[in-house]
Amino acid sequence: MRLSQFHLHTSKETPAEAEIVSHKLMLKAGMIRKLAAGLYTWSPLGLRVLRKVERAVREEMNAAGAIEVLMPAVQPKELWEETGRWEKFGGQLLKIKDRKEAWYCFGPTHEEVITDFARNELSSYKQLPVNFYQIQTKFRDEIRPRFGVMRAREFLMKDAYSFHVTDEDLGREYRNMYDTYGRIFTRLGLKFRAVFADTGAIGGSASHEFHVLADSGEDAIAFSDGSDYAANVELAEALAPGARAAAGEELRKVDTPTQKNCEDVAALLGIGLARTVKSVAIIGSDGEGKPQFALALVRGDHVVNEIKLSKLAGLAEYRLATEAEILEHLGAQPGFLGPVKPLKPVRVIADRSVAAMADFVVGANENGYHLAGVNWGRDLAEADEVADIRNAVAGDPSPDGKGTLGIARGIEVGHVFQLGRKYAEAMKLSVLDDSGKAATPAMGCYGIGVSRIVAAAIEQNFDEAGIAWPEAMAPWQAVVCVINPKNDAAVAQAAQDLYQDLLKAGVDAALDDRGLRPGAMFADMELIGVPHRVVVSERGLAAGSFEYRHRRASEAENLDRAAVLARIGGAAQ
Amino acid sequence: MRLSQFHLHTSKETPAEAEIVSHKLMLKAGMIRKLAAGLYTWSPLGLRVLRKVERAVREEMNAAGAIEVLMPAVQPKELWEETGRWEKFGGQLLKIKDRKEAWYCFGPTHEEVITDFARNELSSYKQLPVNFYQIQTKFRDEIRPRFGVMRAREFLMKDAYSFHVTDEDLGREYRNMYDTYGRIFTRLGLKFRAVFADTGAIGGSASHEFHVLADSGEDAIAFSDGSDYAANVELAEALAPGARAAAGEELRKVDTPTQKNCEDVAALLGIGLARTVKSVAIIGSDGEGKPQFALALVRGDHVVNEIKLSKLAGLAEYRLATEAEILEHLGAQPGFLGPVKPLKPVRVIADRSVAAMADFVVGANENGYHLAGVNWGRDLAEADEVADIRNAVAGDPSPDGKGTLGIARGIEVGHVFQLGRKYAEAMKLSVLDDSGKAATPAMGCYGIGVSRIVAAAIEQNFDEAGIAWPEAMAPWQAVVCVINPKNDAAVAQAAQDLYQDLLKAGVDAALDDRGLRPGAMFADMELIGVPHRVVVSERGLAAGSFEYRHRRASEAENLDRAAVLARIGGAAQ
Repeated sequence: MRLSQFHLHTSKETPAEAEIVSHKLMLKAGMIRKLAAGLYTWSPLGLRVLRKVERAVREEMNAAGAIEVLMPAVQPKELWEETGRWEKFGGQLLKIKDRKEAWYCFGPTHEEVITDFARNELSSYKQLPVNFYQIQTKFRDEIRPRFGVMRAREFLMKDAYSFHVTDEDLGREYRNMYDTYGRIFTRLGLKFRAVFADTGAIGGSASHEFHVLADSGEDAIAFSDGSDYAANVELAEALAPGARAAAGEELRKVDTPTQKNCEDVAALLGIGLARTVKSVAIIGSDGEGKPQFALALVRGDHVVNEIKLSKLAGLAEYRLATEAEILEHLGAQPGFLGPVKPLKPVRVIADRSVAAMADFVVGANENGYHLAGVNWGRDLAEADEVADIRNAVAGDPSPDGKGTLGIARGIEVGHVFQLGRKYAEAMKLSVLDDSGKAATPAMGCYGIGVSRIVAAAIEQNFDEAGIAWPEAMAPWQAVVCVINPKNDAAVAQAAQDLYQDLLKAGVDAALDDRGLRPGAMFADMELIGVPHRVVVSERGLAAGSFEYRHRRASEAENLDRAAVLARIGGAAQ
Repeated sequence: MRLSQFHLHTSKETPAEAEIVSHKLMLKAGMIRKLAAGLYTWSPLGLRVLRKVERAVREEMNAAGAIEVLMPAVQPKELWEETGRWEKFGGQLLKIKDRKEAWYCFGPTHEEVITDFARNELSSYKQLPVNFYQIQTKFRDEIRPRFGVMRAREFLMKDAYSFHVTDEDLGREYRNMYDTYGRIFTRLGLKFRAVFADTGAIGGSASHEFHVLADSGEDAIAFSDGSDYAANVELAEALAPGARAAAGEELRKVDTPTQKNCEDVAALLGIGLARTVKSVAIIGSDGEGKPQFALALVRGDHVVNEIKLSKLAGLAEYRLATEAEILEHLGAQPGFLGPVKPLKPVRVIADRSVAAMADFVVGANENGYHLAGVNWGRDLAEADEVADIRNAVAGDPSPDGKGTLGIARGIEVGHVFQLGRKYAEAMKLSVLDDSGKAATPAMGCYGIGVSRIVAAAIEQNFDEAGIAWPEAMAPWQAVVCVINPKNDAAVAQAAQDLYQDLLKAGVDAALDDRGLRPGAMFADMELIGVPHRVVVSERGLAAGSFEYRHRRASEAENLDRAAVLARIGGAAQ
């Protein structure tokens, strides 16, 4: 592409409305232009990137045996009533009334439409398994659309739906899609993790989310350095540490007049935070439905995980205890609480790590005091329950027994679900099995946020000068920058020749023949994130060389023509 | 593509709801599946064809210098109010209210959005000319959606919009797009015509429609056999014939008791229909706004063109005269009317052809009688006006002076407009010109109905067995059919080898390894319209040959491997 014939429109101003890096850089680079809240036009530059993602997704889906279809964006209400989702889906469903007063929606997802398609198309086990996918525009009427295309209302999505006679076969295709997603994100050059997930609103029985790792990600992910284990921090299991050490200290009361949290107590005593225990006072219900006071104990450097806690008996709807309830049961104010000698009987729930501690520090149930050298079985009874009730942290052993957990932040860009028979049953999809009996197929569904990947990739790949695209997603892999093309025919010709050589070598190259001064031209190319830059100048030509610089390199190098081609062609493969 | 791994789903039944051939065949072939009124899912088979059209359009648009963008489907009301189209567009505009009670529409076209994009993106003449296009899903809420994807509500369209400092430059790009459209339809292998058109609702100053020719087309097109002239029959100028011949007959009254139309009179008199004149009694208004009785005269074998007639003075809102008005002015009943000796003064408007007639036949203004041997200037005064007031017919001279007109029916699949400054002015788009002054750009817009082309192509290319795709649009160019693959490994292997050879030769080939019996397999391939079919059978292999048949050929031929490859590879280029 000759950039003089293209429409490139960068901006030096940092847009005030953009809250995150990718939104800022996409606006500055001129990749998108806002039309209305959560609605964006993809400029020529932005669309080049979007199409590269789309193509990678399509080719890998095809290679995995999925078959492309194209369903309408507009969907009739009747189908959504069959599954009960017309009401249940909530405010994100954009409802539309046509000229005949019939109700439709702008599809936020296509389970209903594909299941309707399937019940018309599929009648025999011989047609199964089959996996239909589309790459199509969807709409979710977000309450607060923001972050540009990261959380837009209209967006481009790849959604796939598979149909199977048996659960085993669904499991096989689920694994196939899981592997395919890995190939897609690897091919795009993104650091990512497949994360165990709850199934959420769509329903079903097994699910992984695919996250692009980025510091700005909304979700914290615990992942192993020794396996492909990854899970949302809130879902990752925190294993029991080794056996408890023997008691080594005497129980003693320490004066902590103003020290109301573990950090302050540890600092005062000159001990590690991991030697302290945090006591969280909560109210659950006992076996008969009456309120029950409980203490949830986690190590001072850990955080209580509400989801895990709420899965314990009687705690499904637990709440924090009031100061009055605390005073009644423990006889002290928050900040000085602990499991030793409460006023009234208390249910004690110890995190696995706490149960393994010896010589620890807890509140003394007396204002202004803590207890140190506390030991289970000697100073207090063993806990009523030992359970995993904390968030996993970096350094924890991986739950699969392989390696150690790290914590990263991620942006969800893909999701694979085992839907089971929920939609097939609701919509009466059935096929004849190999014995001639009607069978309800099991379904899987597999989504990728195509437009979201563009923003997520930027969150992972940028610096102060702009975007630093992975090779496979860049609008162009390489740009040939011409210094002063209008006044120097030899330079213009040399640049044109090099550009043509790159095209012939299969490199998606651009020729920046716009005639900008070098500073502005280089700033543009760094902002839009072209991986390889070659400068053709009079001085360079005289020396028989071109100035080459990779977007992530700190320095430029002078290379001859063959070296430039080798460098770019090699990287572009 | 191995068809055992594909989802092909043909049907033997002719769908009752389909009124036209393309709709029937697309349903039978399983290319589309109806979701709701005017909403269709494209099956894997249908999508293959749609994508081939899309690709041809994209590649030719890119080659013509247009730049692809992607605009949202959902558009805010505010933009449509700037151009006044929120109200004016009418019921086809699907209006949508979001969760915040703000109004949007599902875009039926994108003039407003692109002009808004342009006023943000374009500020200098240096950025012009520029032509932005997209291939995107649109929605028009048709009162009566029908004919499958031919008149669907949701459809795929290529829309392009160009911006120019001068009208001359708009004219240049208009010609560029006109030529590009020609290349697109030629590449797709379609017979088509570019037709002069009125600009209709979108507004502007020059316009051509592109029609795929098909007997079932909604529009009649007059086209020259000696040039690229083509126009809607209603718009095509009917030229004046040669000079009037001298009178050769005496005026005489003929007895036509029951002959109330030209056909019957001509039959009774044993003369050609072209010797008779039809008199249509209408009411227009005179120069002062009063009703004026007029006779519009066309040759018996011609048809009055209401559009042309209404362009004459006082006839903008003309209507047919009532029997009472006719009796008052002419003294006779319809069927016996004519311009000779009316009871009251009558405005006589003669079509050019009528003005050139001698010795013609008209009604006598006396019930049961006609006049024969009528001549202008002798039996009645010359007409008050001579004008082109009829539809062009086959055999007319072409208005551009080159060749003779034929009439064909067409399906509109593309449209190029010179919009001028209508949208730019309404939405305050301006750029600085080369003298630093604000200038309002001229705009062009250029549409192609991508999904409609698929149906139109079928209307042009089918037979009793099914679709007969042009090479460039076929789901596959060639299919290798295997007889009895499960029981004959040698046949299966030979078919696989030939299939691979075709792929290597760049042919988009399919391998029909579904194991159907030959009749069903061949019927499927004829129905879905694959151009080249090669059958691999035990008998053929024994003779060292394959049975080759082109979809349009009446007979199969036995060819060796090299001949098969040469035949298909050659045609596929």
